[in-house]
Amino acid sequence: MQLYKAEVTGIGKGYFEITVPPEDYLLRTSGIFHGGVIAALADSAGGYAATTLQEADTSFLTIEFKINFLNQAKGEKLIAKARVLKGGKTLTVSQTDLYTVDKGAEKLVATALVTLIKAK
Amino acid sequence: MQLYKAEVTGIGKGYFEITVPPEDYLLRTSGIFHGGVIAALADSAGGYAATTLQEADTSFLTIEFKINFLNQAKGEKLIAKARVLKGGKTLTVSQTDLYTVDKGAEKLVATALVTLIKAK
Amino acid sequence: MQLYKAEVTGIGKGYFEITVPPEDYLLRTSGIFHGGVIAALADSAGGYAATTLQEADTSFLTIEFKINFLNQAKGEKLIAKARVLKGGKTLTVSQTDLYTVDKGAEKLVATALVTLIKAK
Amino acid sequence: MQLYKAEVTGIGKGYFEITVPPEDYLLRTSGIFHGGVIAALADSAGGYAATTLQEADTSFLTIEFKINFLNQAKGEKLIAKARVLKGGKTLTVSQTDLYTVDKGAEKLVATALVTLIKAK
Repeated sequence: MQLYKAEVTGIGKGYFEITVPPEDYLLRTSGIFHGGVIAALADSAGGYAATTLQEADTSFLTIEFKINFLNQAKGEKLIAKARVLKGGKTLTVSQTDLYTVDKGAEKLVATALVTLIKAK
Repeated sequence: MQLYKAEVTGIGKGYFEITVPPEDYLLRTSGIFHGGVIAALADSAGGYAATTLQEADTSFLTIEFKINFLNQAKGEKLIAKARVLKGGKTLTVSQTDLYTVDKGAEKLVATALVTLIKAK
Repeated sequence: MQLYKAEVTGIGKGYFEITVPPEDYLLRTSGIFHGGVIAALADSAGGYAATTLQEADTSFLTIEFKINFLNQAKGEKLIAKARVLKGGKTLTVSQTDLYTVDKGAEKLVATALVTLIKAK
Repeated sequence: MQLYKAEVTGIGKGYFEITVPPEDYLLRTSGIFHGGVIAALADSAGGYAATTLQEADTSFLTIEFKINFLNQAKGEKLIAKARVLKGGKTLTVSQTDLYTVDKGAEKLVATALVTLIKAK
């Protein structure tokens, strides 16, 4: 996430938000955020959301995730908003909605379901 | 959906809701709705939601879907609430949230992302 | 699976195969197997494959699955061939490939990834 | 893929293989390839496999993908092997299997299903 110059822009019980600027190396030549960047962000935000419901030193491993790309990801920032759908003893499922902001307007560009397991 | 005695309980622009009663053949011996029933309902509701944004005779094919089972699906009915996340010229993506109702309380038991394409 | 008149047609360490006949109530009016039937079969076969690597009374719950529909599912039978990709202490991941057979020729109609957890 | 120092190590009709070295910035502190890197590689390789079945200047957009992480991704390289499951007029579905190589031994660390659409 350091490589992405990612910034935490929101945090709550079962919620985590990360914002990323449009650095050149995160974009295609057409100025659109790379799918790989969007997916990595979705995964990370989903994992951090999971930790907000646990004791401080709990960590999670991603078992699997699925992402749908919905709209062109072009704008002055990319925001990942992750919320926990189910926080269980062993498993957690988060959903991460990803938005670009262009001239102040938010647009949903992707959504992901992320399944996580507590690391031992 | 006839086999499931499914009833349409909500419809709007980009929204479709189906409710199913706990018929014996839809349940495991433990009284829980079968995962296969939940998945089929998620898929169907997602497809019907897609049609609400189109001309009357448009039909859709499911390209793929993904479903997460979140909680035990036990109750006096199973409700699938599907909404369109993206309705495009060729592709539509719906999300279907599935709830059971037990003594009046709704519980989220599964969620699915469904990708559809207009049938020719 | 009884409702589907499903028959076990193959079993091995980490492998399970189920075959289903084209009963009317499993087909659309166009004679194509319902997506919901294909998905339920994928899920079930994936779960049974998981049990082949465990002690006799172990059961599994499906955490999530994802299915891609690849070709029209028309034919004299539908076969689900599930194999375990990863059988761990807690989690198992199976892949189920689904084929129709038409005049002796097998065609891949769908594939699914199924994530399972051991039931207590 | 440049950022990843990715190298094409195999190509054929409906097949594409990419290999990535364990550069520090692609690894967690524990020396394991980042999930985000594995996912991006799965997506890219799946897309390139799709292009092998098309005319030279055809490009694809990823509609969605799903990835299961199966084993710890540690080793002297990471290899993505993508093959087309279905190449249609509009849609293509690829599967990418990802392996690490450690002391000469290949281990399956993840698998992904990638759905693509031809870009106009």
